[in-house]
Amino acid sequence: MQDRGVLTVISGFSGAGKGTLVKKLISEYDNYSLSVSMTTRAPREGEVDGKDYFFIDKPAFERNIENGMMLEHAEYQGNYYGTPREYVEKQLSAGKDVILEIEYLGAFQVKKMLPEALLLFVTPPSAEELLRRLRGRHTETEEQIQGRMKRAIEEADIVDKYEFILLNDDLDTCVRQTHEIIQNAKFSVSRNAAFIEEIKKELTVTVG
Amino acid sequence: MQDRGVLTVISGFSGAGKGTLVKKLISEYDNYSLSVSMTTRAPREGEVDGKDYFFIDKPAFERNIENGMMLEHAEYQGNYYGTPREYVEKQLSAGKDVILEIEYLGAFQVKKMLPEALLLFVTPPSAEELLRRLRGRHTETEEQIQGRMKRAIEEADIVDKYEFILLNDDLDTCVRQTHEIIQNAKFSVSRNAAFIEEIKKELTVTVG
Repeated sequence: MQDRGVLTVISGFSGAGKGTLVKKLISEYDNYSLSVSMTTRAPREGEVDGKDYFFIDKPAFERNIENGMMLEHAEYQGNYYGTPREYVEKQLSAGKDVILEIEYLGAFQVKKMLPEALLLFVTPPSAEELLRRLRGRHTETEEQIQGRMKRAIEEADIVDKYEFILLNDDLDTCVRQTHEIIQNAKFSVSRNAAFIEEIKKELTVTVG
Repeated sequence: MQDRGVLTVISGFSGAGKGTLVKKLISEYDNYSLSVSMTTRAPREGEVDGKDYFFIDKPAFERNIENGMMLEHAEYQGNYYGTPREYVEKQLSAGKDVILEIEYLGAFQVKKMLPEALLLFVTPPSAEELLRRLRGRHTETEEQIQGRMKRAIEEADIVDKYEFILLNDDLDTCVRQTHEIIQNAKFSVSRNAAFIEEIKKELTVTVG
């Protein structure tokens, strides 16, 4: 079977608990590696190049885009942000399961570049619970919260392009299920074309 | 999420250990139910109707086929064998995960009738190991074994229509993985259209 790691893209409603889920997944199992983003914005105090972000200038970032070296990218407030392909490929080749926490436009860019990518979508058990969690943060105005809820309606329309739903009701259960889904993806037929070809060849030789 | 059980079809190379795998899966976890086949052949001594098979006559079986009441069927030595839809549906509705151990032609018939079916294919780690296991049984002539190997070549061609490969190297590991794959199928997007629709509706109402 494949020794290559699985590239997993995790998206979800804001307020669904993606960040906490990803953090816990990575700290509980040692086969995961979080992707490091690339950006053209200036480093903030304390940020380390290659750890928090890969910091590069705009012309270099644009060359990366042209050369197919970005798995996905977006512009935000005049700066580029994206996922460099080389870093992800190195981790996957080393057998690491790479986690990318990005929103859906980025997720679909990644899937187009690397169809093997596993797309997971985090959701709370209900819309009511989502609203409760957003309000419980006490960090945003009601207007901002309503904005997030409207965005959730938009996002709900594209969930069917993902492979699995991660129902984040109990966090520990959700972390364990996420781990199982990613590990079992290694046995999906679509990710094992090479193994299937190999056994076909072997069978033909063995029967003679 | 769905309360309905998952219908899993398990096929695989003969000699891959399907039977042992299914038996162990069912005895280790109590959420599974093995489907009971229907046949037109006469009951053998000790066979119980509704347990070993559902025994019916040919005209009744043929009416079942016509009325779409068989999930799959085949003819073998002048008798019909197949999977009655009603029995499977009842088990699924009761939340049982139903296991169907059948070969690929039947598997594809089931998938056509119930697209939600999860198709799993059991394989040994290599063709050599398959041959070793077949010979190790000491129940068949070398000619019969070669026949099975030739059939395996045919089967290898259709593996890509299945969803997951179950690599049966260590039996306990394979049983656990099979269980995880089936349980996590409950979170696949394609099996949760209703949940996604529900949360969409809820979001719209909540935002107002």
